[in-house]
Amino acid sequence: MDAGELKKILKGISDGSVSIDEAMEKLRNFPYSDLGFARIDHHRELRTGYPEIVYCAGKTPEQVRAIFTVMQEHENNIIGTRAGKELFEYISPFFPDALYHDVARIISIQKKRLTPPPARIAVITAGTSDIPVAEEAAVTAELLGNNVLRIYDAGVAGIHRLVDKLPEIRECRVAIVIAGMEGALASVVGGLVNMPVIAVPTSIGYGASFQGISALLAMLTSCAAGVTVVNIDNGFGAGFSASRINRM
Amino acid sequence: MDAGELKKILKGISDGSVSIDEAMEKLRNFPYSDLGFARIDHHRELRTGYPEIVYCAGKTPEQVRAIFTVMQEHENNIIGTRAGKELFEYISPFFPDALYHDVARIISIQKKRLTPPPARIAVITAGTSDIPVAEEAAVTAELLGNNVLRIYDAGVAGIHRLVDKLPEIRECRVAIVIAGMEGALASVVGGLVNMPVIAVPTSIGYGASFQGISALLAMLTSCAAGVTVVNIDNGFGAGFSASRINRM
Amino acid sequence: MDAGELKKILKGISDGSVSIDEAMEKLRNFPYSDLGFARIDHHRELRTGYPEIVYCAGKTPEQVRAIFTVMQEHENNIIGTRAGKELFEYISPFFPDALYHDVARIISIQKKRLTPPPARIAVITAGTSDIPVAEEAAVTAELLGNNVLRIYDAGVAGIHRLVDKLPEIRECRVAIVIAGMEGALASVVGGLVNMPVIAVPTSIGYGASFQGISALLAMLTSCAAGVTVVNIDNGFGAGFSASRINRM
Amino acid sequence: MDAGELKKILKGISDGSVSIDEAMEKLRNFPYSDLGFARIDHHRELRTGYPEIVYCAGKTPEQVRAIFTVMQEHENNIIGTRAGKELFEYISPFFPDALYHDVARIISIQKKRLTPPPARIAVITAGTSDIPVAEEAAVTAELLGNNVLRIYDAGVAGIHRLVDKLPEIRECRVAIVIAGMEGALASVVGGLVNMPVIAVPTSIGYGASFQGISALLAMLTSCAAGVTVVNIDNGFGAGFSASRINRM
Amino acid sequence: MDAGELKKILKGISDGSVSIDEAMEKLRNFPYSDLGFARIDHHRELRTGYPEIVYCAGKTPEQVRAIFTVMQEHENNIIGTRAGKELFEYISPFFPDALYHDVARIISIQKKRLTPPPARIAVITAGTSDIPVAEEAAVTAELLGNNVLRIYDAGVAGIHRLVDKLPEIRECRVAIVIAGMEGALASVVGGLVNMPVIAVPTSIGYGASFQGISALLAMLTSCAAGVTVVNIDNGFGAGFSASRINRM
Amino acid sequence: MDAGELKKILKGISDGSVSIDEAMEKLRNFPYSDLGFARIDHHRELRTGYPEIVYCAGKTPEQVRAIFTVMQEHENNIIGTRAGKELFEYISPFFPDALYHDVARIISIQKKRLTPPPARIAVITAGTSDIPVAEEAAVTAELLGNNVLRIYDAGVAGIHRLVDKLPEIRECRVAIVIAGMEGALASVVGGLVNMPVIAVPTSIGYGASFQGISALLAMLTSCAAGVTVVNIDNGFGAGFSASRINRM
Amino acid sequence: MDAGELKKILKGISDGSVSIDEAMEKLRNFPYSDLGFARIDHHRELRTGYPEIVYCAGKTPEQVRAIFTVMQEHENNIIGTRAGKELFEYISPFFPDALYHDVARIISIQKKRLTPPPARIAVITAGTSDIPVAEEAAVTAELLGNNVLRIYDAGVAGIHRLVDKLPEIRECRVAIVIAGMEGALASVVGGLVNMPVIAVPTSIGYGASFQGISALLAMLTSCAAGVTVVNIDNGFGAGFSASRINRM
Amino acid sequence: MDAGELKKILKGISDGSVSIDEAMEKLRNFPYSDLGFARIDHHRELRTGYPEIVYCAGKTPEQVRAIFTVMQEHENNIIGTRAGKELFEYISPFFPDALYHDVARIISIQKKRLTPPPARIAVITAGTSDIPVAEEAAVTAELLGNNVLRIYDAGVAGIHRLVDKLPEIRECRVAIVIAGMEGALASVVGGLVNMPVIAVPTSIGYGASFQGISALLAMLTSCAAGVTVVNIDNGFGAGFSASRINRM
Repeated sequence: MDAGELKKILKGISDGSVSIDEAMEKLRNFPYSDLGFARIDHHRELRTGYPEIVYCAGKTPEQVRAIFTVMQEHENNIIGTRAGKELFEYISPFFPDALYHDVARIISIQKKRLTPPPARIAVITAGTSDIPVAEEAAVTAELLGNNVLRIYDAGVAGIHRLVDKLPEIRECRVAIVIAGMEGALASVVGGLVNMPVIAVPTSIGYGASFQGISALLAMLTSCAAGVTVVNIDNGFGAGFSASRINRM
Repeated sequence: MDAGELKKILKGISDGSVSIDEAMEKLRNFPYSDLGFARIDHHRELRTGYPEIVYCAGKTPEQVRAIFTVMQEHENNIIGTRAGKELFEYISPFFPDALYHDVARIISIQKKRLTPPPARIAVITAGTSDIPVAEEAAVTAELLGNNVLRIYDAGVAGIHRLVDKLPEIRECRVAIVIAGMEGALASVVGGLVNMPVIAVPTSIGYGASFQGISALLAMLTSCAAGVTVVNIDNGFGAGFSASRINRM
Repeated sequence: MDAGELKKILKGISDGSVSIDEAMEKLRNFPYSDLGFARIDHHRELRTGYPEIVYCAGKTPEQVRAIFTVMQEHENNIIGTRAGKELFEYISPFFPDALYHDVARIISIQKKRLTPPPARIAVITAGTSDIPVAEEAAVTAELLGNNVLRIYDAGVAGIHRLVDKLPEIRECRVAIVIAGMEGALASVVGGLVNMPVIAVPTSIGYGASFQGISALLAMLTSCAAGVTVVNIDNGFGAGFSASRINRM
Repeated sequence: MDAGELKKILKGISDGSVSIDEAMEKLRNFPYSDLGFARIDHHRELRTGYPEIVYCAGKTPEQVRAIFTVMQEHENNIIGTRAGKELFEYISPFFPDALYHDVARIISIQKKRLTPPPARIAVITAGTSDIPVAEEAAVTAELLGNNVLRIYDAGVAGIHRLVDKLPEIRECRVAIVIAGMEGALASVVGGLVNMPVIAVPTSIGYGASFQGISALLAMLTSCAAGVTVVNIDNGFGAGFSASRINRM
Repeated sequence: MDAGELKKILKGISDGSVSIDEAMEKLRNFPYSDLGFARIDHHRELRTGYPEIVYCAGKTPEQVRAIFTVMQEHENNIIGTRAGKELFEYISPFFPDALYHDVARIISIQKKRLTPPPARIAVITAGTSDIPVAEEAAVTAELLGNNVLRIYDAGVAGIHRLVDKLPEIRECRVAIVIAGMEGALASVVGGLVNMPVIAVPTSIGYGASFQGISALLAMLTSCAAGVTVVNIDNGFGAGFSASRINRM
Repeated sequence: MDAGELKKILKGISDGSVSIDEAMEKLRNFPYSDLGFARIDHHRELRTGYPEIVYCAGKTPEQVRAIFTVMQEHENNIIGTRAGKELFEYISPFFPDALYHDVARIISIQKKRLTPPPARIAVITAGTSDIPVAEEAAVTAELLGNNVLRIYDAGVAGIHRLVDKLPEIRECRVAIVIAGMEGALASVVGGLVNMPVIAVPTSIGYGASFQGISALLAMLTSCAAGVTVVNIDNGFGAGFSASRINRM
Repeated sequence: MDAGELKKILKGISDGSVSIDEAMEKLRNFPYSDLGFARIDHHRELRTGYPEIVYCAGKTPEQVRAIFTVMQEHENNIIGTRAGKELFEYISPFFPDALYHDVARIISIQKKRLTPPPARIAVITAGTSDIPVAEEAAVTAELLGNNVLRIYDAGVAGIHRLVDKLPEIRECRVAIVIAGMEGALASVVGGLVNMPVIAVPTSIGYGASFQGISALLAMLTSCAAGVTVVNIDNGFGAGFSASRINRM
Repeated sequence: MDAGELKKILKGISDGSVSIDEAMEKLRNFPYSDLGFARIDHHRELRTGYPEIVYCAGKTPEQVRAIFTVMQEHENNIIGTRAGKELFEYISPFFPDALYHDVARIISIQKKRLTPPPARIAVITAGTSDIPVAEEAAVTAELLGNNVLRIYDAGVAGIHRLVDKLPEIRECRVAIVIAGMEGALASVVGGLVNMPVIAVPTSIGYGASFQGISALLAMLTSCAAGVTVVNIDNGFGAGFSASRINRM
């Protein structure tokens, strides 16, 4: 709620067009719907520039359905992440427009399509097993109105595979680098480009990869400046942040 | 080395203006200086958009001096981070233009000044003890050609102190949020703005703050989308990444 | 066993109304039942103010049934936590008064109802997925004789949702704050109220949330004074402690 | 800022006694002082019931002095924790009323003395080395208006030493239990009393005590219900929370 | 192989009763059977005083059967730990004397029964859920020739339950204390008896009990001297060590 | 790409036998196949001396089949590790030459057989449960052209079983030592031989073995010089490195 | 306080020789001295068989002196562990009988000398750097009335050095094995002897030895049965437990 | 002691040239010197191919001097690692041949010089701060008879600096890669060469580099096969292992 809106309400009181109780109500009545188990924040699109994204893991199908229903009434675009196939099958009959992105595990309902800016977001993975996280990032970025350049399986053990794609990467405006195991790809890309790099550690690996901790630590301590990091397997977060940067 | 340059060299061979040995030399002779203990990467300014930054911790004063000397010969702007007062006192007589930013612990020598873009970078701390890290971020951003809005000691335990500054923050293009202990400020800011947020955990705290691990984990698992994270106390990295975004 | 009781026994010996052997017996014979695999502490209601609560996880259905049977003979209220649906189905035929609180996963048998004090206990969650832990806390508090104000899904990423409920929260006497991921809600609530806050980290989240460790550390290092913490997912412990405070 | 205050301001606009700009100012102008490096929250005494406490570690002596000066102007009681002897010696000439509690490492300036409630707060340590943390808790509780019962060196290896003091402990309203190493004292006390128990792990010990982690984990997983936990060595937090409960 | 045996072999060479090749063979030929996947150490009964114990987890049923078969040929007593019910059902037809101790998950075949020493080994658990580990300890101790005093569910939250049994415990020669969660029982018992105490942390608990780490750390840092510790859930190791001490 | 090749291309341009575009193409066109989800590095056999090994875990059967198909077209030997039985059953009909090594969980297709050097690689395990990891190492080494000496179940608790095999081990050129739990075997072997020792910690054990961390740390801190370590359960890596050394 | 004493007191009441108040007093008055900061447990010698041992680390010299003074009045033997040279120099003038064991960092005052049992306790170290911990164990064992066999620097990297001493070790009744780094010596000794083995991890090492954690984990997961473990660097605890076993 | 030696002794008994007591003595009398606090293993040169190396950290100067003295009497080459300047100054007068390698912190005394094999060992560091660890590796390798190629400060953030040196590296037979922070250099080198790579994590870095843990984990989980790892900062171990491989 910014100073302009506030002034308008106060003026309304002053000139009698708004009663004190109405003002109280307006100041108090934040624009969200209370479902009891979930409060949907319709205001967020204004406040943070994007609609609320529904993190489906840990919610019952009934809860997700109820949340979607309220969101739909407000004509929001809907993005549901970490959504299993079964959830989509339950949800689908109620929302005929819903699409399922199965590798990304995302359900989307798009009411208004956003015009992408000219530059793309590069989404690069070290290995084949990192693709589901990469797709979560790429699909998120696309749904939020961006074009994406996908480069998968370009890991450090064969650097020439990455070098080959550098000219195309350098035309992007943000790079998302996704790697498990030792996560070295983030440092290598970070040393070769001059755009913001968002690194996503994945839980791919075994033993001392500790479900992504090794990659996470490696990315946080990268010797390449310009690299920032999100949570393990958080493709959504990377896609969301990249979109914020790309659409500035 | 991009495709354009390569083509030019190859053309030179083809039309005889460049000998094979010259070409060999050019292709091989990467633009760095070998000091034995350090290889200075003059090319980086072209390749990544910024001059090499010298991380002074773990280097002897003599090594830092030698590195600065070579960099100066190439007319680069020089930034030395994690530089103690004693290091500056040793370096200073050899580089009369060198400035010392004592809270930030940065030595700078500026040859060419960069024009800042219109929007500022917000640097926000939770507490007073976080200020040295914040200054490292702020001074880095300034040296790389940005204006900075400093908001210090706006921690979560008194949220109204932050709310009061929101209009000013919202005029920035990137926010750097710096907090130790439980690092909650990153989530709170992330929920209130619609710009990229770079979170810097600090080692401030005691006991279960584990030298910044608690803040780091909290920031990585932030429920607010749009937050990316750098290493504990890595003010430089945050300032550098923010600059990349702000100057796009 | 307090000094008063002891004096009475000793007096009994002195005036001959109690024999030495009776006294030995009384002093030795603590009021619990030995089932071989479990010793039920009937005395606890006197000693700590509440009946023993049965932690059902890790016990066989037969063991739980035997424990309940002995407790029932002593006319105690019975609370069984971490009780799966199957356990209730096994137990139910033997204890017709038993109720099952399915989200909270609690079995209760109430012999005597306790009069709640006027003030309520606030139970606040950051997300929808935290509700099972919240219900464990809320149902525990209710069974121990308290009224509860439930506020669910009021997380930090949309702080206005919490602010809206502040007046109601401030009328409570204790607040239980339940959050996974980065657990920032505990700090935010702790900075806005002047009552004891009990924080419950939950295992909700993925990657660097490490099954609740991030939230736990964040809550322990909260910059807001007045916050104390219980074990990850320990809704019962929070409800129990809150009840102790509220019923003082 | 509660609904009552808000209504008064709105009424003022309505009846013309408050101009819109004044209202804007009032609504915006939160009661804190901005020192640049620190924002002092004078409002907190109203909002959370206690004045702001100054955590001195990590602040320069000059910063602490400036903060105290502003606080003094608002006639607040001042408590500075984690304050070394040298800090007190620097501060002392400027604040003749300042007292130094050396074992507790607290500086206090009391403008108004609070009347303690009838019941005391019990502060119990396992060992002699835990006393500094205990004193931080005890002095905090006393400065916030409570009487304290100190029982030091009553560790589990000689349980009879604790049992002997039980009657006195049971007359208190809250117990703070402070222990390093394996922290078992919290469970033992928690099993013997029916009041809220706040456990403080200390960094006392060596090897596998891991600077207090062992005690912290033990206290969090205590089999005794009614125990909540604060950060390692956080005597202040325990004293503060205990005071909140005791003065309800 | 001690000096006496060695001398006898050397003498045999000297007086011609043993050929050099025989001596080579004897010195080289250690008494074990090589099954390819497992080498059974028949000599261990002499060398360490007990037959080899078979740790069944991680072995296929066929491997266990083959190992038992060879051991039986050498008339050894056989103990197989961590043996599931299905393993016993597979093994049982081949070894009609085999017994299954189902709570302890141990298979035993006893050829020669050992006479127990007069003193018993006390096996004490904090909770009901710790019983499987306790039974592994108790059955191991019994099979190795000891009588056992079982005291189950005597946890710290109700210390009087333990105190009541102290006289009986004090007649034992070794105590095994088994506890999960915060493991405080080891310290409490250690402070009340003057015999060696072997503490076994169990993986019982949730959240910050970290599958037994909390109990393990607590036991290692016990303030009670005379406590030594074995691995988490290692009932066998505790029973084995206790037997070594008790049968000295 | 070495200097010789480069010179040849450049000469080709100079003498007109190679066009600029052809040169561009050659310099750019690295020898790998792009399958979209995986880039196969045919060049690796030249560059690193061995064909690319396919890590099958985390890949779908369809992806593995596609990778194998492309590799087969280039007449490479194929090794697929971490391959479950079901994967082999899916793959097998398409590749009649494929073999399945079931304990090692490796699929192999051999086009050209390599002549082993005279010395063998010793593969030694501490226990029976370590055999699957050992077989991964041994089969890898064999497929890469080495003979292997297998010594299984020679753990530290019965050192004479190892000593007996020392002469045979000493004839090898590299030793791979595989152990879980406390991993002491690596130190013991390292102290008895004068060849490179590669230690492989396994996830065998329970409780404080922490899925191989204990063995890993023990091997890294081995007091025996000459021991290097690979990831937990990484039999493949050990076999691969041993082969590099043995075939030098 | 055993049943016999209790009966005597009760009888005294019954026959009038003891007044109720005297009885109250006796039952209440446990035999310890309250110094305010420390409660000395004179009764412990009876209850646990040994006098209280003073852990000097974390106590001020004045506190140690006061504790020693009270203990001396009760004619107890005094053992002060973790005592620096400066502490001894402060203490020494007040206690002319005090001895300082400088490698072990122990102060002792012996009033009554204990007759050692015939068998010795073996104290074995892996390296030279482990000697201070070994001396703490050995001196503790000696002061508690045992003879000690010291074998230092017999680490696993040269196993023959240990084997040579086996006959002497086998004549002992308990073995204490002290090792840092990978701690393998405990497993090796445990596999060669048939007596109880107490393993002491030391903080010797660097990097992945993590101040003794590697050795601790290795010892806890030892494949040799009969090994129990104490805290890192806890020579005292090992010596104390070994004495309990040896003097049984 | 191998079979040949044993046979010779046995034969000597058989033909009377060796008495039984002499044989006993020979078999028992292992070739080491017992200094009380250290046992020097002169035999190791034969058994493992290299003289014992003295790890000086944690030893007193007097202990090091005594060890050197005994080693010198046996005409061994002496290498003392982790030796501070002060230690050398103390040692130097007694051993006029002793040399000090100050960056490597190694003292050496060479009696016999070893002829290096034709191929060199490459020692590569990521940064300038890694040089001390690199020098420990390089000097160790040189003293053990190898030539070394040093390439320092070739980190991943500027990969072309490494690529430039590839031809020279490829002529070596083993590569040691030394890096702190995220340790990515090991993976990059591992993907570019076909020789054994020994990776050494260093404790260089701050925050989430956790004194080398990040680099260690990254190296253990390297996606490049052929990489093995030694302890953090263990330059000596890498140099020693590389020498074993290079001199095969």
